[in-house]
Amino acid sequence: MPQHDSKDDLYFLPLGGSGEIGMNLNLYKSQGKWLMVDCGISFADSYLPGIDIIMPNTSYIEQRRDKLVGLIITHAHEDHVGALAHLWRRFRCPVYATPFTMIIIRLKLAEAGLLDEVPLIEVPLEGSVKVGPFAVDFMSLTHSIPEPNAVRINTTAGTIFHTGDWKLDPEPLLGEKTNAERMQQVGDEGVLALVCDSTNVFNVEASGSESKVRDNISQMLSSKKGKIFCATFSSNVARVDSLAQAAKKNGREVCLVGRSLKRNVAAAIEAGYLQDFPKLVDESDAGYLPNEKILYICTGCQGEARAALMRIAQGNNRDVTISRGDTVIFSSKIIPGNELPIGRLHNNLVEIGAEIITENDSFVHVSGHPGQSELSQMYDWIRPEILVPVHGELRHMVRQAEFGKSLGIKNTIVPQNGTLIRLSPGPAKIIEYIDTGRLALDGQFIIPAEDDAIVTRRRILYNGALVVSLVVDETGEFLATPEITNLGNPDAGTTPFEDTIIEAVFAAADKLTRKQRADKNKLAEAVRVNVRKAAKNYTFKETGPLTTVTVSQITKD
Amino acid sequence: MPQHDSKDDLYFLPLGGSGEIGMNLNLYKSQGKWLMVDCGISFADSYLPGIDIIMPNTSYIEQRRDKLVGLIITHAHEDHVGALAHLWRRFRCPVYATPFTMIIIRLKLAEAGLLDEVPLIEVPLEGSVKVGPFAVDFMSLTHSIPEPNAVRINTTAGTIFHTGDWKLDPEPLLGEKTNAERMQQVGDEGVLALVCDSTNVFNVEASGSESKVRDNISQMLSSKKGKIFCATFSSNVARVDSLAQAAKKNGREVCLVGRSLKRNVAAAIEAGYLQDFPKLVDESDAGYLPNEKILYICTGCQGEARAALMRIAQGNNRDVTISRGDTVIFSSKIIPGNELPIGRLHNNLVEIGAEIITENDSFVHVSGHPGQSELSQMYDWIRPEILVPVHGELRHMVRQAEFGKSLGIKNTIVPQNGTLIRLSPGPAKIIEYIDTGRLALDGQFIIPAEDDAIVTRRRILYNGALVVSLVVDETGEFLATPEITNLGNPDAGTTPFEDTIIEAVFAAADKLTRKQRADKNKLAEAVRVNVRKAAKNYTFKETGPLTTVTVSQITKD
Repeated sequence: MPQHDSKDDLYFLPLGGSGEIGMNLNLYKSQGKWLMVDCGISFADSYLPGIDIIMPNTSYIEQRRDKLVGLIITHAHEDHVGALAHLWRRFRCPVYATPFTMIIIRLKLAEAGLLDEVPLIEVPLEGSVKVGPFAVDFMSLTHSIPEPNAVRINTTAGTIFHTGDWKLDPEPLLGEKTNAERMQQVGDEGVLALVCDSTNVFNVEASGSESKVRDNISQMLSSKKGKIFCATFSSNVARVDSLAQAAKKNGREVCLVGRSLKRNVAAAIEAGYLQDFPKLVDESDAGYLPNEKILYICTGCQGEARAALMRIAQGNNRDVTISRGDTVIFSSKIIPGNELPIGRLHNNLVEIGAEIITENDSFVHVSGHPGQSELSQMYDWIRPEILVPVHGELRHMVRQAEFGKSLGIKNTIVPQNGTLIRLSPGPAKIIEYIDTGRLALDGQFIIPAEDDAIVTRRRILYNGALVVSLVVDETGEFLATPEITNLGNPDAGTTPFEDTIIEAVFAAADKLTRKQRADKNKLAEAVRVNVRKAAKNYTFKETGPLTTVTVSQITKD
Repeated sequence: MPQHDSKDDLYFLPLGGSGEIGMNLNLYKSQGKWLMVDCGISFADSYLPGIDIIMPNTSYIEQRRDKLVGLIITHAHEDHVGALAHLWRRFRCPVYATPFTMIIIRLKLAEAGLLDEVPLIEVPLEGSVKVGPFAVDFMSLTHSIPEPNAVRINTTAGTIFHTGDWKLDPEPLLGEKTNAERMQQVGDEGVLALVCDSTNVFNVEASGSESKVRDNISQMLSSKKGKIFCATFSSNVARVDSLAQAAKKNGREVCLVGRSLKRNVAAAIEAGYLQDFPKLVDESDAGYLPNEKILYICTGCQGEARAALMRIAQGNNRDVTISRGDTVIFSSKIIPGNELPIGRLHNNLVEIGAEIITENDSFVHVSGHPGQSELSQMYDWIRPEILVPVHGELRHMVRQAEFGKSLGIKNTIVPQNGTLIRLSPGPAKIIEYIDTGRLALDGQFIIPAEDDAIVTRRRILYNGALVVSLVVDETGEFLATPEITNLGNPDAGTTPFEDTIIEAVFAAADKLTRKQRADKNKLAEAVRVNVRKAAKNYTFKETGPLTTVTVSQITKD
């Protein structure tokens, strides 16, 4: 029996979200049972060509799914819930969430045809639930979506306070302000490990309040004459409400543009939020209102090509147009990596003659993650024995560990995806490195990020490909001119690319002995090596194209 | 004769750098002759897969090269000089530059085997030169490289003040402070058009002084115990000197790591700069010094995979290693679009246990481009009739035009690559849109950015490719099993991908009439359409793979 399988031990194993911002998936083990917290996606970068969505590789827990007692979704952001519908069939367990999150989960499962299969347990706000050996208390925090929950996970070996994503908003506009007494009480009752959001640890100052954003935008609108467009994150329902209320106060009607925005607003209303939300105007009617009477709330604050704002800016929305003198407010942050598409969108808007207002110009956005002063407050409340920073790249997590230490937390441990950490009995320690990795959504398939299909596309991206098809008789004599398929090699030399390759085919074949030549595999390999070299010499790239040679051997009768 | 061909007119035509930050190439026309100012490269984004370097398409001036009297390089940054060696053969004209820039130009031309072909005219600092009908005065400004020049271009139709890249450094550490009297005099003598750097127009404050950076870094070093690594832009010779002087002051030897750094320092010394530069320690010797006695200056501040700092951080430099307790100073800005590679490098360094200091933590970098207060000073000096913002994306240029207007400049015109602007006789006006575009360096070839090779690679990146090779007789009957080459399609369904495709080949062939089938082109097209559809249905992607079908028709005897 491995060292780490004692029933009285408590373990933490992140499979995603530790060492990256995105695709959170955390596992806790107590009494031989596993509890999953969150199951999110992330967005791929150019290293995975043709891939948008990536997910944690769950094979470790799939192999132990009989021991997996449940999955808790802390809140409805994609990096916490987005992989559920894609991966659930692999581990099949009951799913727990609060009402708003559950509405979003149901929509996702319905789309995937899974709604009838997944056992869903709705937990009320501030509710408690027993999941196998884990006694889980949901506690409302504040963030940038309705119903962000921390979970206190009580086990026989100690208590974990898993924050999820959070901030301290002194005046939240949706949901309650964080209950300081309750947090203090959690600390009084004793917490072994605080597993805590590291996203904004480099920010010295606190994140700020949503109500200040609302006031500022409302005031800003009063001087504007043209149409107003506001882009924000569609799940930030409080912000959407802020924008709508600011519109109302300034005599403007509100129109939502973008599917995910409408979906989130509908979900929030269904969950009992947005009681004062103004009646909406339809896209097709909004154009008939005077310019100074309309405010559009749009998806696409990150410059996404297919989202509402980019489509409007490029003239691809039938009903909604931006014109000279209109104002576009980016009530959002620039997510690192999105600078170029956002810059492109700004240029489109400038070309139209619209005024652009971003968080660099005015107080139109607050973050949903804790800065140092908020982290410090959390440490004071919770007073954990161990601080486990998660939800960050390595540099964020290491920084939070340092910060926690500087404020007197004695034990800190920085996880990475795949580190199996024993939290108790102490001291906290990495006892095993589990093979993890990423899965990628490629068309309809979920494949490993290192799958042939992706590796092949990446190789072609740099070096192009080349396919040579040969037809030979039993002796290896050519029965037809070799067919050359050039995929992405520049054909720009003094000799045409194809001629160069055909010459290399013949040269390779001529060098073989009669016996070698009659062997179609030997012939294919000799030709492959030689044409690849010829193509490399032709293009002068570091590596030759991805080269395939097929040989059809025809027996003449 | 087109409207814009009058000899007494003065024209401005940017082919690169207007509507983007990078690949500057500007053309002026007077008395029927053209003058080129700068000839730079830019770096490609993921829209051009496998391409690093792009350049302006110069075909417009190639067609008029008998009228091109010369090329002035304002300074030696890659976005101003980098395309010279690649493109010069296309337009062949004399090249003018000041001594430091000329050393860099000679190195580049020598590498390209062009040194003996290109007529080079070295112009002294503050020198003047007559280039065809253009009387050109070089005037030293300050920037982030030695010898940044503005050029005053005097023509029969008026005077242009083309700033190049500049800032106002009150205490530059290399070269002279901007001569305010001379600038004032330029304004007194009359300027028709100010063609001006827009890069930092969104910065309200001035860029700041290099000497402050030097002082701060020097002070910072005094408390450090381990090895120090400083990454900066290799052409920023003043910064390299700042780092070296700070090292000297703190009793540390200096070692340069990275080819371009060594090259720039050597060029600066050859041009008479860096008189006090400390004697350098070789990479292979530096490791023998105590940690607190060495400071490495490295290339790779943008997280470039092959540059010195990343290679050291990944343990790929034989002689130089970073260890726990060392300090890495990024004496540089984050160029938008480079956030992800820089973040990756930071994570590598954090994993090692090095301390990272960036411009967010301390005053370790100043920009080389003018903020609003510096622009305002320039307008006061030059008092142009027309302001022409360049060196910016559209949003930067439009903002500078607004800013200039707000300060009383009556005429502003925002160019784009390819806009032929008549500056005189006024009013300034775009009179023609010239087809421009970009060239890409692909291996050894310079090809249009929209070349088949690049478009093909981009298509494969998203959709994969598929090549089907058929062998048939004169009637179209198959003589061999179809050969399927799958390039980047996920083979993850219940049926193998290849089986699905072969089935689609047969199905397509079976549907043809005997006559159609005997026609190899008809057969190929029918199979192509059907296998592409089958592949699309298999992967469930929006578009099927890039599909090629080759048919070898064998006549049986």
